[in-house]
Amino acid sequence: MKVDVLISPSELSSVDLRGMAVVVVDVLRATSTIVTALANGAAEVVPVETPEEALRYRLGDPAALACGARGGKPVEGFGLGNSPVEYTPERVEGRRIYLTTTNGTEAIRKAFERGAGEVLIGAFLNLSSVCDELRRRGRDIALICAGKEGRAGLEDLVFCGRCIERLGDEAELTDGAVIARIASRSFADVKEALLSSQHGRYLVSIGFERDIDFCAREDLFDLLPTAEPGDLIRITASPRCPTAPSQAPPRGCRA
Amino acid sequence: MKVDVLISPSELSSVDLRGMAVVVVDVLRATSTIVTALANGAAEVVPVETPEEALRYRLGDPAALACGARGGKPVEGFGLGNSPVEYTPERVEGRRIYLTTTNGTEAIRKAFERGAGEVLIGAFLNLSSVCDELRRRGRDIALICAGKEGRAGLEDLVFCGRCIERLGDEAELTDGAVIARIASRSFADVKEALLSSQHGRYLVSIGFERDIDFCAREDLFDLLPTAEPGDLIRITASPRCPTAPSQAPPRGCRA
Repeated sequence: MKVDVLISPSELSSVDLRGMAVVVVDVLRATSTIVTALANGAAEVVPVETPEEALRYRLGDPAALACGARGGKPVEGFGLGNSPVEYTPERVEGRRIYLTTTNGTEAIRKAFERGAGEVLIGAFLNLSSVCDELRRRGRDIALICAGKEGRAGLEDLVFCGRCIERLGDEAELTDGAVIARIASRSFADVKEALLSSQHGRYLVSIGFERDIDFCAREDLFDLLPTAEPGDLIRITASPRCPTAPSQAPPRGCRA
Repeated sequence: MKVDVLISPSELSSVDLRGMAVVVVDVLRATSTIVTALANGAAEVVPVETPEEALRYRLGDPAALACGARGGKPVEGFGLGNSPVEYTPERVEGRRIYLTTTNGTEAIRKAFERGAGEVLIGAFLNLSSVCDELRRRGRDIALICAGKEGRAGLEDLVFCGRCIERLGDEAELTDGAVIARIASRSFADVKEALLSSQHGRYLVSIGFERDIDFCAREDLFDLLPTAEPGDLIRITASPRCPTAPSQAPPRGCRA
């Protein structure tokens, strides 16, 4: 099993993802928000790039929510912002969410262009769910850091390193993966890593330290969100299924 | 002073290099070879992408050498390969060298497209020359890892981290620069870092361990090669000048 880490989404132009298990990670905050929304019962998340797109799609879909932010600030006409803690069951249960997220949407879209069949959505909040699934599949793996505007993000790289540690010692690592593991090992504490990143410091500066605390929580949810390709990317979640057949599967379990 | 590290040349599409001091590094082996050739008296190095280009330019310039390799193997009709240890004074003194190097040439060319006025050439062989010059200039800095085929290379990242350590504590670091420093600190020994990289292991597998030993030597040369933009990129070296005015400047000193 080979593990590759794309330290920035710019590297997507240089890879062929056909046949690989592919994960996109954007810890601060797109994938943390997607995981939280789906864990709290949202029907699906549709990532789009601009607030205008989100509002246009919601026009034809009045039960849906248009969500997200620009530069960390709320968008007029939007139901919720970019902060995962806003996505409570009361607000999202059963609803479709059009979420504006430049970096996350772009990384997922480009992964499909490079041959990914589906894209798993990773965050510290569902770290074990993602890594257990990758180990179960046993295929070559590509972990893609969404970063920011085509550049590397420390927080995403540390997620990749934590994931690699859980895949065991027999995995064959590319240089990107070796770098991710080194980065992860240099932070004992996830929150410290997030606070060391440029985007983490920016979020603190505009008053979102509670989001850092939340996004740093490992394995708060046991959930595997999966993005499917299409004109619109649709992300739905399969709660991970119990391995013992005697246990009742959780609601929505697809296995 | 802000220090940015582009972990792969793919990130060049996302940056504006105008006004910055820019370094391209391709430790294994393009920039190590360029530094060695110029230190041993080559008149200039002209990096080109393909062997055909190198041979075509040499046709109109019979005193020049067409050099480089493909996949680590020699090219028919070429004077020298990609191995820096081949570039002895006897072979290169006073000559122009057309050097084929895909990753290095591409990174330098793209740096000019993104606004770099000139590009410094960095390798462990001239680490202090480059870092002293960057500190002297006091401008914002972009260190660009040439890597391999648009992907990150561990060996180049460790160079960037070593360089950042020499710039002092007051530099403001991007996430890429923080990651480079973490990578550098995880290797006490440069050779160990090179042997941990994918390309380093590949070079050992095809019999070039002597190149790893050579490219890992820090500060073997006190030399600052600089690439100037143009239809052809020309790289010449200024031996670094003595700071005490009483000392005679070395041959070729431009200060």
